[in-house]
Amino acid sequence: MQHPYKERSREELMCALAEARAEFETKKALGLKLNMSRGIPERRQLDLSMEMLSCLESPEDYIEAGVDTRNYGGVDGLASAKKLFAELLDVSPEQVIVGGNSSLNLMYDTVQRGMQFGFGGCLPWGKQSRVAFLCPVPGYDRHFTICEKLGIEMRPIPMTPTGPDMDEVRRQVKDPAVKGIWCVPKYSNPEGVVYSDETVRAFATLQPAAADFRIFWDNAYCVHGLYDEDDTLLNLQKEAEKAGNPNIAFTFASTSKITFPGAGVACMAGGREDIAYIVSLMQAQTIGPDKINQLRHVRYFKNADGIRAHMKKHAEIVRPKFEAVLERLERELGGLGIAAWTKPRGGYFISLDVLPGTARRTIALAAEAGVVLTPAGSTWPYKKDPNDSNIRIAPTFPTQEEIEKAAETLCACVKLAALEKLTEN
Amino acid sequence: MQHPYKERSREELMCALAEARAEFETKKALGLKLNMSRGIPERRQLDLSMEMLSCLESPEDYIEAGVDTRNYGGVDGLASAKKLFAELLDVSPEQVIVGGNSSLNLMYDTVQRGMQFGFGGCLPWGKQSRVAFLCPVPGYDRHFTICEKLGIEMRPIPMTPTGPDMDEVRRQVKDPAVKGIWCVPKYSNPEGVVYSDETVRAFATLQPAAADFRIFWDNAYCVHGLYDEDDTLLNLQKEAEKAGNPNIAFTFASTSKITFPGAGVACMAGGREDIAYIVSLMQAQTIGPDKINQLRHVRYFKNADGIRAHMKKHAEIVRPKFEAVLERLERELGGLGIAAWTKPRGGYFISLDVLPGTARRTIALAAEAGVVLTPAGSTWPYKKDPNDSNIRIAPTFPTQEEIEKAAETLCACVKLAALEKLTEN
Repeated sequence: MQHPYKERSREELMCALAEARAEFETKKALGLKLNMSRGIPERRQLDLSMEMLSCLESPEDYIEAGVDTRNYGGVDGLASAKKLFAELLDVSPEQVIVGGNSSLNLMYDTVQRGMQFGFGGCLPWGKQSRVAFLCPVPGYDRHFTICEKLGIEMRPIPMTPTGPDMDEVRRQVKDPAVKGIWCVPKYSNPEGVVYSDETVRAFATLQPAAADFRIFWDNAYCVHGLYDEDDTLLNLQKEAEKAGNPNIAFTFASTSKITFPGAGVACMAGGREDIAYIVSLMQAQTIGPDKINQLRHVRYFKNADGIRAHMKKHAEIVRPKFEAVLERLERELGGLGIAAWTKPRGGYFISLDVLPGTARRTIALAAEAGVVLTPAGSTWPYKKDPNDSNIRIAPTFPTQEEIEKAAETLCACVKLAALEKLTEN
Repeated sequence: MQHPYKERSREELMCALAEARAEFETKKALGLKLNMSRGIPERRQLDLSMEMLSCLESPEDYIEAGVDTRNYGGVDGLASAKKLFAELLDVSPEQVIVGGNSSLNLMYDTVQRGMQFGFGGCLPWGKQSRVAFLCPVPGYDRHFTICEKLGIEMRPIPMTPTGPDMDEVRRQVKDPAVKGIWCVPKYSNPEGVVYSDETVRAFATLQPAAADFRIFWDNAYCVHGLYDEDDTLLNLQKEAEKAGNPNIAFTFASTSKITFPGAGVACMAGGREDIAYIVSLMQAQTIGPDKINQLRHVRYFKNADGIRAHMKKHAEIVRPKFEAVLERLERELGGLGIAAWTKPRGGYFISLDVLPGTARRTIALAAEAGVVLTPAGSTWPYKKDPNDSNIRIAPTFPTQEEIEKAAETLCACVKLAALEKLTEN
């Protein structure tokens, strides 16, 4: 364990700064060109699902229960795909819509429908005077971008180790302007937090002032554990039903990080009324999703256990990368008192909090050394991290060898930025 | 040639009515169960493209110009797919967005973007006091449904044998509330009209009062000719550019009726500024379309000529069905003076105008005899055909043998409905 910077004398810090500079130059000289900016599977993960692409052969293979998946129809998805994802999300098939390849698209369209048509029989959000979403922070930048683009006000909610601060959530939803909250409940982006049962129940029993308030439950990492013993997340849709709140939440998921990011299948679930309403709106938008690709997924995986078994293979590839980063963070930054980080048991990210006021500088230094990180502030609404301290690490895309170098480079940048800050003026 | 009903005596008509009733009962006794309601390819057409589904094999096949199509990215489509559809639509690739499987979805989203964000720097349509679209009639019901759902007023424009009545269009666009027009310029739905060069130039040089007026040019049947000699349609995007109107139109197309209705690829084109603007908005909506399916299309067809050659095979299947229907219309209804129909050289529909006030009854009779037609009024905004006379015939889905029976049944219904009408009171 290293000695904390704050307990060192200025002279010692100046000395450490010189060392950090030299170390940074060494890293820079490696000439890396690595991307840790987004949660992107690496090539070996894509290769895992190749058999799915050839599991349908003859024309007859494409016909299921009398439905020719090659032809038009099925606006809410192929029946067997609805069944598969209903099993995965533990809801009933009539609560599920299976769409195209992008759950972000399903989320965007759902928020857009709130703006254009409204929910729960209320005035469309676009016609109400004030519309706000709660945004647990740090969070997923693409959620925040949807709100920003659609002109929805964002209010940060602090995250805790068991999920969003529910006292604050309960306080906020007393305001009828609050229409939604973005959640990544399992292995949250970027912290890897799994919401506790208490948190899920608090969501299920929420009594928002607005009848058109909805929880946007982005269960992107529902089967993305890294260890044999999976973490469990209470089923929000069921808890909400029990609590007499059946239409309070929309759940989203996809196979983007199960099969192919570019050619997976996305799905959403919700209360029966809400889903029937959305399907009725969708009738004007499309004749139906790509049912062939849905059928490929169904035939390849067969059931939710098939998906879970497949995810073990992903974990074998992803886990050593997480561990390599965590090991280096501990070794290089442990005890210095300038950084804290999460130790996720799943998902795609590690959240790193550096010395306040140095995240932007750290990211700039890393870029200079050839390691691209998510832009500073991205984990906050409007890209404004008030402390300039949060950095999202996405360890999956580089190879194992690369990620080790990238993590070491990042640590050198964190130290250098911190020492620059501590020794300024 | 039969003798016109209107020149017959009441006694003769009563006699014809009795015959028509008997004929209808005979048709009904066939116990048909056929669907001519929508433009759906039949099974043999789907089988034509099976090789496309297996044209990619090893992981390397999925990598194109350094892009792994299996992974994230490419919000506006795969470069080679943009090139293919740019060639097909004869525009430049930067004017093209290649999307998912549904051009209807691209159209809906484009209109929705007009509502939410606006075009040409103008106030979003949703924030303007009045928004209207021009709707050439008869037209495509799904276009009208988009407007209806989004609360856009629809104004019918008469069709002529060379396209919409352009004098009326020019008159209407003087009203700044008019923001768009729906066109199916080649083998129009349902009449099969190909817009003349003069009509296309009139569109290209249109001077609408609204800077945010756009032509929605649904070129769904751009390569869907039935005969060896193809009909040519002037390129609206190029004519508009020449006329200094580069952003006045959006063109839409898809491979739904080239490869698979359920798993084709849709694309849109437009002015460079508009397309760049739409791509910027799409960044919030999706990380990208299914690039694997786009790549399948590119590898299978190679270029626009590949698509055109493939369409000859479709024509071989579709043409005899059109001809069978036209032959029966002529044989059964020719000369009676109770019906007129188009003789399309491509597309998916025949437009039939029956005696005013009898379309609804004809369709009901056909349903009774087991032949499902598009619901009465569907070719008009709000499903209100003021003359109750237009019927859209979609001959592609039934087999050849079935379509012959269906056409004969339809003719019997047209006659019976007309005779009921002519002999009432």
